[in-house]
Amino acid sequence: MKTGALLRKLEAEVGTDELSFADADLQSHAGDKWFASARPEAVVRARSTQTVSRVLAFAHRHGIPVTPRGAGHGYVGGCVPVNGGIVLSVAGMKRIRRISAKDFVAVVEPGVLTATLQAAVEKRGLYYPPDPASRADCSIGGNIATNAGGPRCLKYGVTRDYVLGLEVVLADGTVVPLGGQTHKNKTGFDLHRLFVGSEGMLGVVTRANLKLLPLPPFRACLGVGFESMDTAIAGLGAVFASGLLPSALELADAFTLAAARKRTGSERLSGCNAHMIVELDGQERSVRQELRALKSVLGGFQPLFVDQGFGPDGCEKLWQLRRQFSYALRDTGLTKLNEDVVVPRGSLKALFRLAAGLQKKHGIQVACFGHAGDGNIHVNLMVDWKDDGQRERSEVALDELFHGVLKLGGSITGEHGVGLAKKRWWPSAAPGPVDALHRTIKAALDPKGILNPGKFLG
Amino acid sequence: MKTGALLRKLEAEVGTDELSFADADLQSHAGDKWFASARPEAVVRARSTQTVSRVLAFAHRHGIPVTPRGAGHGYVGGCVPVNGGIVLSVAGMKRIRRISAKDFVAVVEPGVLTATLQAAVEKRGLYYPPDPASRADCSIGGNIATNAGGPRCLKYGVTRDYVLGLEVVLADGTVVPLGGQTHKNKTGFDLHRLFVGSEGMLGVVTRANLKLLPLPPFRACLGVGFESMDTAIAGLGAVFASGLLPSALELADAFTLAAARKRTGSERLSGCNAHMIVELDGQERSVRQELRALKSVLGGFQPLFVDQGFGPDGCEKLWQLRRQFSYALRDTGLTKLNEDVVVPRGSLKALFRLAAGLQKKHGIQVACFGHAGDGNIHVNLMVDWKDDGQRERSEVALDELFHGVLKLGGSITGEHGVGLAKKRWWPSAAPGPVDALHRTIKAALDPKGILNPGKFLG
Repeated sequence: MKTGALLRKLEAEVGTDELSFADADLQSHAGDKWFASARPEAVVRARSTQTVSRVLAFAHRHGIPVTPRGAGHGYVGGCVPVNGGIVLSVAGMKRIRRISAKDFVAVVEPGVLTATLQAAVEKRGLYYPPDPASRADCSIGGNIATNAGGPRCLKYGVTRDYVLGLEVVLADGTVVPLGGQTHKNKTGFDLHRLFVGSEGMLGVVTRANLKLLPLPPFRACLGVGFESMDTAIAGLGAVFASGLLPSALELADAFTLAAARKRTGSERLSGCNAHMIVELDGQERSVRQELRALKSVLGGFQPLFVDQGFGPDGCEKLWQLRRQFSYALRDTGLTKLNEDVVVPRGSLKALFRLAAGLQKKHGIQVACFGHAGDGNIHVNLMVDWKDDGQRERSEVALDELFHGVLKLGGSITGEHGVGLAKKRWWPSAAPGPVDALHRTIKAALDPKGILNPGKFLG
Repeated sequence: MKTGALLRKLEAEVGTDELSFADADLQSHAGDKWFASARPEAVVRARSTQTVSRVLAFAHRHGIPVTPRGAGHGYVGGCVPVNGGIVLSVAGMKRIRRISAKDFVAVVEPGVLTATLQAAVEKRGLYYPPDPASRADCSIGGNIATNAGGPRCLKYGVTRDYVLGLEVVLADGTVVPLGGQTHKNKTGFDLHRLFVGSEGMLGVVTRANLKLLPLPPFRACLGVGFESMDTAIAGLGAVFASGLLPSALELADAFTLAAARKRTGSERLSGCNAHMIVELDGQERSVRQELRALKSVLGGFQPLFVDQGFGPDGCEKLWQLRRQFSYALRDTGLTKLNEDVVVPRGSLKALFRLAAGLQKKHGIQVACFGHAGDGNIHVNLMVDWKDDGQRERSEVALDELFHGVLKLGGSITGEHGVGLAKKRWWPSAAPGPVDALHRTIKAALDPKGILNPGKFLG
């Protein structure tokens, strides 16, 4: 039977309002925020674990590709159904089932938007720290699939650190409740976390038990301009040496700042070749004192200016500049190839050198900004897509970037995932036995290879 | 060929000084700190990854059981070689290969004692938070095998949260470098952390890359006596509601305190039925202020006394009382069955009730103390081992304890592991599909089942 005819049989398995073959639906489920796009043959908008289980059992039986999908807001083409088949969206499973201020636990369905959960728990004096920049648009399921991070991960860790338990549907449709709702748990292997960051290739998450913290009652921010990136990095070293662990520490480079200056028209950034945002959180008096200490530490590095913000509004003002960076880079009219590489914290200077070298060698402008505190810098190659030569050179430059990062002991992705975007560098990042072990696990959990095929395991 | 004769062939694979069949060595590698004991047929004291690899390749080829072993300081019989074969000790691989104050990373061999690593990094202004009570005697390898915790895990997370990368030797001898040295990494699946907490059943760790933090420059402690456990638990709730996240929050019950009082002769604990230790760390002025806030929060719960300690020595004084608890319980002459159960934080009161109920019903004294902040309470059944009836009743009481904990949404072990001690409750804790998924992973990574057989997967 042809796949198309087979897929019609899905109608018997799921609610008719959950299944679509309509052109518009196939098109709207063809890609995410990255370039690539491929139309699936069917879209299931699951509304229950049962549907997810039935669809997977069906697909497993017939060997049909299934590409799980959350909010579709990924940056690496992770949910592009390159091999066709079914796109299985859990975006509609978006109930917050439980928020417990006593247990410090939230139980949510995968389609809940990250910002929605955060607002809901903060109202109760609770805190869910992971804060990807796109948190208003991305969902907990997608965050789990990519082990999403964000600025606050410096102090608070990434999505994985907040996943206490998962309900997962395996490739054959089996529903497994893994982990639990306790903050500590050493029962058996750490299987639920194996699915965190697995990019939809090992199972489909249908419920997550998330750890919450007490909401820090106060936060404050510094925005500091430096004459050079080297000075800013030396300042960063001094911050950590002082025993402070900021909730966030971000850096942006000269190219990014020039674009931001152009966009905002602000003269504030004139002569400024590096910009640092440092945020502290906790009890108000502690935060105010520590911000003073921080100012004095960074004051030793000849800052061009030091802005400060207190409380949510004050901090928001400084972060707005940070958010302008992405828009400003878009204003350039160039195509932004955003690579979220990571290096050991001590190699930040070398990473910025590497990026500058690429710019010089290939005549492609490179904008760097991001979570410097944990070595996770978004290196953006700014490519004139109409210029064939530049486009071709950008491919070489990317090769050099990723291999350079690996040589520095770094990683090709910190929080976006491999997806399609970084598939080409998987063999360099995962030498023989590492790749083989991935395949062993994949084969054990998804022997027919139906789950999100065509990605980094081929 | 008989196993004995086969094992002689190991001499060709490893250094003669690494292999022993001597009676004293077989005896000293027969168990850990738990009751059970079983002599292996050979002991390998590996001094290199190569030896570990060769031993495993050999054992895999011949289907010989291999029980990996760190410092042998576990509490659940996890490294008892119940099926004989080889005990593969990595206790001798104890070099700290690298401590980087710039990268905030330590690279260590598995035999390094936890306290040794902590002292070494603290000298450099760095911090490795996981702090199992036995940190002077247990090793990083064992900590990884059990995903060890400790009081400070409340704020800082458990061992897993500090494992950035591992060199693992698989069952067939293949050496795999997993993860890396960056604080963030989304390259592929989170495979290195699959080995964290795997109790030697999936592979043998031969090197660990550990995340370090800036050393908090100051800490301070409160030791607070309460008239009842209910009041203490209400106080605990108020601490978290105030937005404070202490580095540790411990509780001890009346039985424990009575034993401690007997041991220390101190009248301080008279009338005190619950004792809380709360520790804060960070910048000195912040900590001093927050301790005052904490005192005022707990002051609302009619404490019998409030002791405070500042700095390492001041805190140490209060923690000494905590350490006396174990010794005091030993002084009773009773056999302590220490179960490290966990409940959701909001169910602490129910857990203490459950424990009190067991005491009443079975006539066995129950002492509870531990990491209340994360719901991880060490419930100690104090059994007169010479009393057959009591010994038998203790088995029933344990059943009721574990099933009661599971009913509260809890876990049968928070940081010690399952090992042999909790094997009996594995089927209740890991229902059908959970157990099956464990077996799938086990079969994929260790198809001949040579690694630490006889434990929770049988």
